[in-house]
Amino acid sequence: MRAVVVTEAGGPEVLRIAEIEEAEPGPGEVRVAVRAAGVNRADVLQRLGLYPAPPGVRPDVLGLELAGEVERVGPGVSAWKPGDRVMAIASGAAQAERVVCHERMLLPIPPALDFVQAAAIPEAFLTAHDALFRQAGLGRGEPVLIHAAGSGVGTAAMQLAHAGGNLVLGTSRTAEKLERARDLGLDHPLAVAPDGQFSRRVLGLTGGRGVPVIADFVGAAYLEENLRALSIGGRLVVIGLLGGARGEVDLGRLLARRLRLFGSTLRSRPLEEKIAATQAFAREGLPLLERGLVRPVVGEVLPVEAVGDAHVRMAEDRTFGKIVLRFDR
Amino acid sequence: MRAVVVTEAGGPEVLRIAEIEEAEPGPGEVRVAVRAAGVNRADVLQRLGLYPAPPGVRPDVLGLELAGEVERVGPGVSAWKPGDRVMAIASGAAQAERVVCHERMLLPIPPALDFVQAAAIPEAFLTAHDALFRQAGLGRGEPVLIHAAGSGVGTAAMQLAHAGGNLVLGTSRTAEKLERARDLGLDHPLAVAPDGQFSRRVLGLTGGRGVPVIADFVGAAYLEENLRALSIGGRLVVIGLLGGARGEVDLGRLLARRLRLFGSTLRSRPLEEKIAATQAFAREGLPLLERGLVRPVVGEVLPVEAVGDAHVRMAEDRTFGKIVLRFDR
Repeated sequence: MRAVVVTEAGGPEVLRIAEIEEAEPGPGEVRVAVRAAGVNRADVLQRLGLYPAPPGVRPDVLGLELAGEVERVGPGVSAWKPGDRVMAIASGAAQAERVVCHERMLLPIPPALDFVQAAAIPEAFLTAHDALFRQAGLGRGEPVLIHAAGSGVGTAAMQLAHAGGNLVLGTSRTAEKLERARDLGLDHPLAVAPDGQFSRRVLGLTGGRGVPVIADFVGAAYLEENLRALSIGGRLVVIGLLGGARGEVDLGRLLARRLRLFGSTLRSRPLEEKIAATQAFAREGLPLLERGLVRPVVGEVLPVEAVGDAHVRMAEDRTFGKIVLRFDR
Repeated sequence: MRAVVVTEAGGPEVLRIAEIEEAEPGPGEVRVAVRAAGVNRADVLQRLGLYPAPPGVRPDVLGLELAGEVERVGPGVSAWKPGDRVMAIASGAAQAERVVCHERMLLPIPPALDFVQAAAIPEAFLTAHDALFRQAGLGRGEPVLIHAAGSGVGTAAMQLAHAGGNLVLGTSRTAEKLERARDLGLDHPLAVAPDGQFSRRVLGLTGGRGVPVIADFVGAAYLEENLRALSIGGRLVVIGLLGGARGEVDLGRLLARRLRLFGSTLRSRPLEEKIAATQAFAREGLPLLERGLVRPVVGEVLPVEAVGDAHVRMAEDRTFGKIVLRFDR
């Protein structure tokens, strides 16, 4: 079967579509015929040799999420049958014609959505749901600040928060993305100033208190401002490091205001934790997708053969929402 | 009544024993005749003008904890009667002959303990209990690293962890304190190297995994090593800043290993949260004190008139356990 393969680190030119061995589903596993697969920043980092696949995962095939049809089920699987439309996160190797998943990692695709739309859901929505609700414990009615509002995770986080009645503040470095994000429930678009400041406006919009929860993909560059923008007892969940990894932290503020700083990634978690995150989303997030209260945001669709172009566009950071690869059969 | 008063910031010489007005207990409040009161680092900081009392608290009288006898109860108080032996944390002004407390903030003094011993309990044990169990969620059987093992909070934290079956690793800059801490349940004393490193030894003692929970009073100077010593999903609770407030944090490690960094103080919390911490300790910690499984560690007892000496000794950092002021009547 064909897959997106990287055998040596480098630029987009090292990406190849190559033939690899198919795997058989073992007990409790399901083989999915992939129809579409989302592209993530992690793919670019993995291509560059900066984000190796976790142990036990084929290291030379990219891809962290997929949508397709169940093709074959392993022994003991009763929840799925061939032909079922499913989507899932994967620890890697998801940009391939067939992917074997644990049955508890699969989510049903809502009837109104096609495979391309479904492929834009798993990473963005599971990451956002896990960060906002399971990690940061965002409460009903609490305001929330979401950075990189135009990213896949950002667009998912804004919608999930908005659907739950939370006031949504969001930043982006691109004015056009902020404008588009209004349709997804962004109440207060905040263009980040050239000096990187945003905390004063966050305080202004929250009666001087700050926000109880921030979902951040930027990291070091926003760390100090994030801590200034948090209310007493506030939680900062860092799920990306676009703005660098090493930053200074004011522990005095952390202490006096009882702040909490969480690092979070899905990929490196053990299977049982990924299943728990998936099933929590199945309970709390899937109904919102099915009712159309939140929706995947697809910024660009390319055939899998154009995966190099997808990486170039990801790096250019101009896409609003997800980039999805289509597997034509 | 007499109290420890500071009217201008400065060295120990600004401390005075002065007459102040007594307060009457309002509805739900209790007036306690103070027999002993613990001394805390926060007292030294407040004397220096670096840690002002929170709003609503008399700013010129020191003291964050007390032990004594109930003298009078306000309207609606049924849980306490005059003569009851009680101890409590306070938001300030506890080093005075009489202190008015909310009835739900009081804890009964275990029968086997005297007032001086009781005065060494509230801040140390409530802070340690809250940090380890309510903030960091230390689980049964998990190993834990406790810094400043000879401090009041350190000695309480080690005992509470040991009593719960947790393997206890502890650091101190003083070899003699580490040796004494063995009697309190310290399994692995770690002398901090001159270069400030300890993470390699923590990893060595935990099969390379690191500890799931660290209670830290040092702050910036230990931040990097603390993050290296945490296991995947580990929690660092910072409750003191003896080693500085501003430190560099490696968010890459925070993300990849899903670490959590909490700031915590009791003093600045609203009444209802302090009551919650107090009542949680009443349920889970008081029985251990009553059974003698944990005990207050009194390093030094001075008459309240010698509060200046107490501050000097606190700054010298040579005491093992708490310094307590005695109110003779």
